Amino acid sequence: MAPGSVIFTGNRKVDKVLIHYMQYDGESIVEKEIDSHSKTILNTSPIDKVDWYDVRGMHDTKLIELLGKTFSIHPIVLENIADVHQRPNYEEYDKGNFITLRALSFDKDKIKVQKEHVALYFNKGLIITFQETESDLFEAVRKRILSSSGRIRQRGSDYLAYALVDAIVDNYYVVLEEVEEVIENLEEKMLVEQDIKDKTKIHNLKKELLIIRKSVAPLREAIGQFSKTESSFVQNNSQIFIRDLYEHTVQIMDTIDSSRDLLNGLQDLFISEISFKMNKVMQLLTLISVIFIPLTFLAGIYGMNFDNIPELHYQYGYHILLGVMFVIFMVLLIFFKRKKWL
Amino acid sequence: MAPGSVIFTGNRKVDKVLIHYMQYDGESIVEKEIDSHSKTILNTSPIDKVDWYDVRGMHDTKLIELLGKTFSIHPIVLENIADVHQRPNYEEYDKGNFITLRALSFDKDKIKVQKEHVALYFNKGLIITFQETESDLFEAVRKRILSSSGRIRQRGSDYLAYALVDAIVDNYYVVLEEVEEVIENLEEKMLVEQDIKDKTKIHNLKKELLIIRKSVAPLREAIGQFSKTESSFVQNNSQIFIRDLYEHTVQIMDTIDSSRDLLNGLQDLFISEISFKMNKVMQLLTLISVIFIPLTFLAGIYGMNFDNIPELHYQYGYHILLGVMFVIFMVLLIFFKRKKWL
Amino acid sequence: MAPGSVIFTGNRKVDKVLIHYMQYDGESIVEKEIDSHSKTILNTSPIDKVDWYDVRGMHDTKLIELLGKTFSIHPIVLENIADVHQRPNYEEYDKGNFITLRALSFDKDKIKVQKEHVALYFNKGLIITFQETESDLFEAVRKRILSSSGRIRQRGSDYLAYALVDAIVDNYYVVLEEVEEVIENLEEKMLVEQDIKDKTKIHNLKKELLIIRKSVAPLREAIGQFSKTESSFVQNNSQIFIRDLYEHTVQIMDTIDSSRDLLNGLQDLFISEISFKMNKVMQLLTLISVIFIPLTFLAGIYGMNFDNIPELHYQYGYHILLGVMFVIFMVLLIFFKRKKWL
Amino acid sequence: MAPGSVIFTGNRKVDKVLIHYMQYDGESIVEKEIDSHSKTILNTSPIDKVDWYDVRGMHDTKLIELLGKTFSIHPIVLENIADVHQRPNYEEYDKGNFITLRALSFDKDKIKVQKEHVALYFNKGLIITFQETESDLFEAVRKRILSSSGRIRQRGSDYLAYALVDAIVDNYYVVLEEVEEVIENLEEKMLVEQDIKDKTKIHNLKKELLIIRKSVAPLREAIGQFSKTESSFVQNNSQIFIRDLYEHTVQIMDTIDSSRDLLNGLQDLFISEISFKMNKVMQLLTLISVIFIPLTFLAGIYGMNFDNIPELHYQYGYHILLGVMFVIFMVLLIFFKRKKWL
Amino acid sequence: MAPGSVIFTGNRKVDKVLIHYMQYDGESIVEKEIDSHSKTILNTSPIDKVDWYDVRGMHDTKLIELLGKTFSIHPIVLENIADVHQRPNYEEYDKGNFITLRALSFDKDKIKVQKEHVALYFNKGLIITFQETESDLFEAVRKRILSSSGRIRQRGSDYLAYALVDAIVDNYYVVLEEVEEVIENLEEKMLVEQDIKDKTKIHNLKKELLIIRKSVAPLREAIGQFSKTESSFVQNNSQIFIRDLYEHTVQIMDTIDSSRDLLNGLQDLFISEISFKMNKVMQLLTLISVIFIPLTFLAGIYGMNFDNIPELHYQYGYHILLGVMFVIFMVLLIFFKRKKWL
Repeated sequence: MAPGSVIFTGNRKVDKVLIHYMQYDGESIVEKEIDSHSKTILNTSPIDKVDWYDVRGMHDTKLIELLGKTFSIHPIVLENIADVHQRPNYEEYDKGNFITLRALSFDKDKIKVQKEHVALYFNKGLIITFQETESDLFEAVRKRILSSSGRIRQRGSDYLAYALVDAIVDNYYVVLEEVEEVIENLEEKMLVEQDIKDKTKIHNLKKELLIIRKSVAPLREAIGQFSKTESSFVQNNSQIFIRDLYEHTVQIMDTIDSSRDLLNGLQDLFISEISFKMNKVMQLLTLISVIFIPLTFLAGIYGMNFDNIPELHYQYGYHILLGVMFVIFMVLLIFFKRKKWL
Repeated sequence: MAPGSVIFTGNRKVDKVLIHYMQYDGESIVEKEIDSHSKTILNTSPIDKVDWYDVRGMHDTKLIELLGKTFSIHPIVLENIADVHQRPNYEEYDKGNFITLRALSFDKDKIKVQKEHVALYFNKGLIITFQETESDLFEAVRKRILSSSGRIRQRGSDYLAYALVDAIVDNYYVVLEEVEEVIENLEEKMLVEQDIKDKTKIHNLKKELLIIRKSVAPLREAIGQFSKTESSFVQNNSQIFIRDLYEHTVQIMDTIDSSRDLLNGLQDLFISEISFKMNKVMQLLTLISVIFIPLTFLAGIYGMNFDNIPELHYQYGYHILLGVMFVIFMVLLIFFKRKKWL
Repeated sequence: MAPGSVIFTGNRKVDKVLIHYMQYDGESIVEKEIDSHSKTILNTSPIDKVDWYDVRGMHDTKLIELLGKTFSIHPIVLENIADVHQRPNYEEYDKGNFITLRALSFDKDKIKVQKEHVALYFNKGLIITFQETESDLFEAVRKRILSSSGRIRQRGSDYLAYALVDAIVDNYYVVLEEVEEVIENLEEKMLVEQDIKDKTKIHNLKKELLIIRKSVAPLREAIGQFSKTESSFVQNNSQIFIRDLYEHTVQIMDTIDSSRDLLNGLQDLFISEISFKMNKVMQLLTLISVIFIPLTFLAGIYGMNFDNIPELHYQYGYHILLGVMFVIFMVLLIFFKRKKWL
Repeated sequence: MAPGSVIFTGNRKVDKVLIHYMQYDGESIVEKEIDSHSKTILNTSPIDKVDWYDVRGMHDTKLIELLGKTFSIHPIVLENIADVHQRPNYEEYDKGNFITLRALSFDKDKIKVQKEHVALYFNKGLIITFQETESDLFEAVRKRILSSSGRIRQRGSDYLAYALVDAIVDNYYVVLEEVEEVIENLEEKMLVEQDIKDKTKIHNLKKELLIIRKSVAPLREAIGQFSKTESSFVQNNSQIFIRDLYEHTVQIMDTIDSSRDLLNGLQDLFISEISFKMNKVMQLLTLISVIFIPLTFLAGIYGMNFDNIPELHYQYGYHILLGVMFVIFMVLLIFFKRKKWL
Repeated sequence: MAPGSVIFTGNRKVDKVLIHYMQYDGESIVEKEIDSHSKTILNTSPIDKVDWYDVRGMHDTKLIELLGKTFSIHPIVLENIADVHQRPNYEEYDKGNFITLRALSFDKDKIKVQKEHVALYFNKGLIITFQETESDLFEAVRKRILSSSGRIRQRGSDYLAYALVDAIVDNYYVVLEEVEEVIENLEEKMLVEQDIKDKTKIHNLKKELLIIRKSVAPLREAIGQFSKTESSFVQNNSQIFIRDLYEHTVQIMDTIDSSRDLLNGLQDLFISEISFKMNKVMQLLTLISVIFIPLTFLAGIYGMNFDNIPELHYQYGYHILLGVMFVIFMVLLIFFKRKKWL
């Protein structure tokens, strides 16, 4: 592929690309759905309001190119929007700043993390977001805008960008709590009984945590850069919030790493518990064999057909032998008990 | 949750929020309990004295917001006060500096670390602390102020902030000493006998150390920043103490890491000791079997019913065979002894 | 070897060194094959066009030296061109910039990575590339130039250099996807049955990933330096692309590292699965032995030849014993079932 | 404990604190023992000579405080002197520089490292050292001063400080050589026979190396800072020596790390050697059982009491069977030999 | 030992210290052997020629001190020359620059690395090298000087210093290639059969790689500093070569690390291969036992002496039983085959 061409690298998850449009300032608010084909509606907005285009679906690369042309977005940004495998990243360009990140969700039963590519471009007064599906990742933020609650309506597009990224990052906590819940359940169960399927579950959890980590590690760096930005599109009083957000990503990385450590510990525990128990069983079984082996040997002795085995002709030879066998049996039993082998 | 809203994320541990108030300088001292509802008492204090509000309980977010308004505290600080899952952190704002940290305690029997969220806000002449429970983490500092011992009464709110953080950090030493004691007891016991429950204990200790580490690592960074502060609220002659405190956190991290190494070593030791002993047992048992197997075979031979087995009719056939068996028995025994298998 | 002498350290992979020459600007394009012996053709080109010499084969050190003399290339660059074991690297010299890198290909069946040394030297208007074989690694770029598609014809030699490196790096994604495919196939198969050959495959994959990593790690650093260049041969509007390319190499490193983690996890899984199953088998076999051992002992008892064994003369002694044996058999079976050993 | 109070945290190792005093310059030398109670003797010395107070014993906190008052030492230094658990550190204060470090000794038989807390304070013309015991760690340096050998008498207190720290660090080499000797002995022995006690020794060695590491790692940092000092109490021509000393600490860390790697390797070797041998034994024993099992079965067959077992009545039935058994025995033996299981 | 005294810490490897002297510029060359006792010959040379004193043997500390006095070498340099355990290092002094490094050689059969301490001091026009043995590590460079080939005769002492270090570093490649060859041979062999001696070989290789690493890691740092030098004794046009040399040391470190990874992988492979095979054997043996155990039990049943065992008196009871036994045998065999246990 030529660098510089906008190519959608994912699976189409919506039938038709929808654009949800919102324009607001402290006083008024406009909200509407834009059909991605009625392109007339895309126009630059008055600079003192916030214009938010929320595009759902990324397969329509022509639309992306049109948006690019309309708002003078750098070609590399357009490429990265359409590339769903793009690593989370923060880039500043002359005419706007660009953030890519991944929304995650976790299926507890299948132990499977789902990723969704999210892209966000903003400059003074304008913000364009891209989601892969129709279901809205930014619903909570949208509600806050509509209800005029919090400080969001008083602030510009940079604060909205922060709030949107914050909504995604907040969700990481939910995902990680679910992961930790699964780990804790596994641990509790494991201390009672060891099931080989749990081994596979641990393996899968580790794999999924790796995937989460691969999404969060670059995001942390990206937000770190975002928080230290000197871009003219980010106001000073927003940066304090972005710094707080950065702290959250650091904490999330910590949680991921300690979850991995927990899983490694669990795996060690699993293996040693199971091999300990299995060894105990083997030892017990072997002990039983060892007790019977000399007894069987004795029975073999008196089952021989020599003409002259005096003991065979004793009146109570058989009973004496049974007694001897019982004594041997008890002695071995006590010996093994003493040695704590039983 | 909207960023910017003060939400209590913990479990309510006190019935009613209590504010312990103290005002002192080198000469005089005032101390009283403030009911959190009689809000009239909150007023800015003369700048040449130290005003310490110690708030016990964090669920009363309205009170926190009121304090915020009264003392012009940045909204993000208020959020972080109420969020008990907040990572230890040090932040400087225009009107004051803010430290979050965690007080730890360790239950030796359950091998369980308890965390308590502590928040501390100070500027010139003012210090506000937040604890989760009614029991006082700062009792020792309070006593020093009351007894006018040490240099604390001569110094400002920045030194008090240092002393309070120092009190928390000092307690980490206690916790880690208890952890090390448990490790040493485990090790001593382990060299004598191996109990599978100790395996679980090691696992739990590792888990708890991870939790401690997650509290100390960010604290070290936070205090590192605190010690390098250029904030106008921290005097130069206090910084030398904060630097010393920083050294302590570094030492605590060292101790945590070496404790983890010890635990890993212990775990390796445990596994190899136990598998070594178990293998020894299995080997011994197998040896016993091996000694009796040829003997039982011989007995089987002379238990056969062939018409013509000449040995059966020898006068002392039986006794000779017993002799032969004894010889085989001894030869095998000596052989195994020589090979050091027994 | 004296430093400063141009020595070919690889295996000759072409019979005769071929030079593919291309000269273009936005309007015109010239393309021809140059015989490496007809050296007259090497001359400096008009500075406003891009001159691309693509040399296939590196064993002809005299040609390399001639090129060096013609275009005033630093002797160390010439050495590094001919040294196929050269680590990927980016160096700036007075008269041009130099990049070494490695093209990779992956043979899925043999699990074997093939490396090809690629060297690239450029300054204003000139670019010289060196490949080990006749097959063209830069075919896609060449097509783009010929078709005038994209922005490549409008830009200078620095953009071409970027595009060529990008073509190599893009191929790493292909290689890593193939590696991941092999890993996934292995994992799926492993959860069904464990084949010792897969163990060797994992081992080989890890070895090959190490080789890939050794190629990518220095390349990442090299491109990092390239992206931060202040060289006069690289235009500002090219640097944004190189920075994007750098992001790609970072992502590739991430993928390599997570693939290695996956392989380690797979290896752990393999070993524990196989030892778990084998232990299960051993346990089952031992259980069977343990069930029969007391029964055989009983049979041995009544096979003894004592004159006076009363039970032998009971009418249904045999049948009673069989019943007793059956009871013992069932009791043991149920006991083992209950213990979940069977 | 209140920060700022001088508290002895160690075990008292001397009965009575002794102060060894030495005053020298290039020409003259004064040496005497000062009773720690006759405090009159402590007075500031002429600035062009070196005054060395060597205090043996640290439990007399009053003496430390008196020294502090006499020589205007910062209170934090006094605290750190009395705290024997203090991490090795280098701090500069207005009136003098302070170094804490640990002297180590190694008991080869018990595999036990002994630590001794050493503190050192110096400014222009003055040096005060603190040792825990009466035995002199600085004997070699003292002798050099007395014998006027080397450059020590020509230089100031900063060079003496360097020479004293150097004496402690030099001893680390001795300790590490002893550790390496123990490791080598263990390795040699291990290749011949595996003793479970060696496992415990390796474990202990690793633990002790951890302790050494914990002393050296912060010391390396401390001396690194010392070597880069801009303090007015350290002359330029002394810094070259301190830099050399820093190199030594780096080398010591290297040695510690490679010793740990050696121990890890040894541990792996131990475990695999021992489990390999044990498995070999188990395999051999199992082979013996397997050889006799079919033979015993055959003997069992012809021990049955069926009325009609034709073979029993053959003239040489018994002898034929013995022959058959011998053949089976040999076939199995050869088979196992071929398979290299024996 | 007092710092500042020149003490030889190695084993004397030459009888008599020899000094090989060479003086050259672009036009002329002088070469002679100097007896280390005829000390008259040591004099400062004309600054526009290169004077190379190559001292073979380091035990003659008086000679080193004499050289030091003659050429005003810093005492610490003299110490470091005589200390063969000195860590590779690069230091700049007022009157000259000093490099210590280690020449390595590898004995493939004994798997043993030999180290030789090499020291190199140079300033404008002067270079003094120290080798431990009489065999010349710098032979190749000497030949190049004599043959006037390459650029060496045109350049100053700094280039010679570079060329000498380069000669040593080049040899590391040879050593590492030999190590890799041993590793590859081990791996090939291991896939066919597992020999416990190979385990020890892997262990030794890891140990030797550690030794190599300990020599190369500090050398890399040293050459890194060398390449960034601003020393007046190093010309600008030499630095490009030193930077290239630095790249080589980085590559060597990479190779060492990947060799260690290979060895770790090999070790894992070895252990799992061997335990897999051994388990397979044990499983097979156990299977054989399990097949015969019920059969032997049956034989035991009909070997009992009950008066009334009806089956014993059937005409073909014996033959029927043999048939039943054969059926049991086959059923078990097929069952085990199906389960893939055989």
